[in-house]
Amino acid sequence: MRYPSSNKIYHKPISHANRGMNLEALINETNKYYIENNLVYITKKPTPIGIVSVSDDEKKMITKAFFKEPSTLDYSGVYKGRYIEFDAKETNSTTSFPISNILGHQIDYIKKLINHQAIVFLIIKIKNEFYVIDGKYLINYINTSSKKSIPYKTIIKNGYKIDSDGLIKVNYLPIIDKLIGGLHEKV
Amino acid sequence: MRYPSSNKIYHKPISHANRGMNLEALINETNKYYIENNLVYITKKPTPIGIVSVSDDEKKMITKAFFKEPSTLDYSGVYKGRYIEFDAKETNSTTSFPISNILGHQIDYIKKLINHQAIVFLIIKIKNEFYVIDGKYLINYINTSSKKSIPYKTIIKNGYKIDSDGLIKVNYLPIIDKLIGGLHEKV
Repeated sequence: MRYPSSNKIYHKPISHANRGMNLEALINETNKYYIENNLVYITKKPTPIGIVSVSDDEKKMITKAFFKEPSTLDYSGVYKGRYIEFDAKETNSTTSFPISNILGHQIDYIKKLINHQAIVFLIIKIKNEFYVIDGKYLINYINTSSKKSIPYKTIIKNGYKIDSDGLIKVNYLPIIDKLIGGLHEKV
Repeated sequence: MRYPSSNKIYHKPISHANRGMNLEALINETNKYYIENNLVYITKKPTPIGIVSVSDDEKKMITKAFFKEPSTLDYSGVYKGRYIEFDAKETNSTTSFPISNILGHQIDYIKKLINHQAIVFLIIKIKNEFYVIDGKYLINYINTSSKKSIPYKTIIKNGYKIDSDGLIKVNYLPIIDKLIGGLHEKV
């Protein structure tokens, strides 16, 4: 299948981003808990922007800039020495996760990271449940399936369900342990 | 020793940043070579900014923003599954590397990353030579020495000299292999 092409200038906010906001807030809270308890160091990346002009005075304020389309994933960090990167994706569909939610550059980027043995995944919110989809599974699915979305049943079967544990809203860390335990395959 | 306190608003460019520009350009070229040859995936992080206002029209341009002081290091990425992060620092001094070149938040951050077993280091340019200073060595030096700078002789003795290899301007990758081979100590 083909994935959407990308533009250099990104008009933010767009609907995809909004759709992810609630999940993002939950993940941000989770990461805060993880970091405070020294379990992992994972943070949201700075928004990529292009700076057009900066003020001439000594304050050096940015007076014009534009949002760039993100070509990486939203979160990255380190866990037990391993490089971790993931994205949070939310869908209102109750039947499947549309692959168009992932931007074109992001798919190439996921492949690159996997080839350097990074732990890469998506956290998908669907039907008020949270799943980890391993990046290797995702790339394999895109390469071999003609479908433009991943059915809910497939997500249940091949994803990892994330538990909510009171203070830890989206407790994805135990699943990273499982992914680290897996074999590293080239994609 | 005490390290410099940090401000939330960062007036860029400042002299420290300028001093590092030449080294940064060499490292950016090196990373380009590494990525094109699939040796490693390490990139410069986006400049952290605080957005104050965005235009109301559909272009969503940033109309006011400020530079935030970087609380992390400049470059991060993945090599053989390991989390890598480093900063490029250049000094005009021929006798020592002033620790004040490292911002306060950066030192705390280096400690955090090391405790999660990341490979963290500085690339220092001094007297037209390049050295890797392991983050663990740096933190230990700051904790145990009363000096405000690292003497050139100490850098030669305890750092790792980086070779320039034609196309690869600052060939730091062989040194990461050495750091990966080392023991992981808490700091």
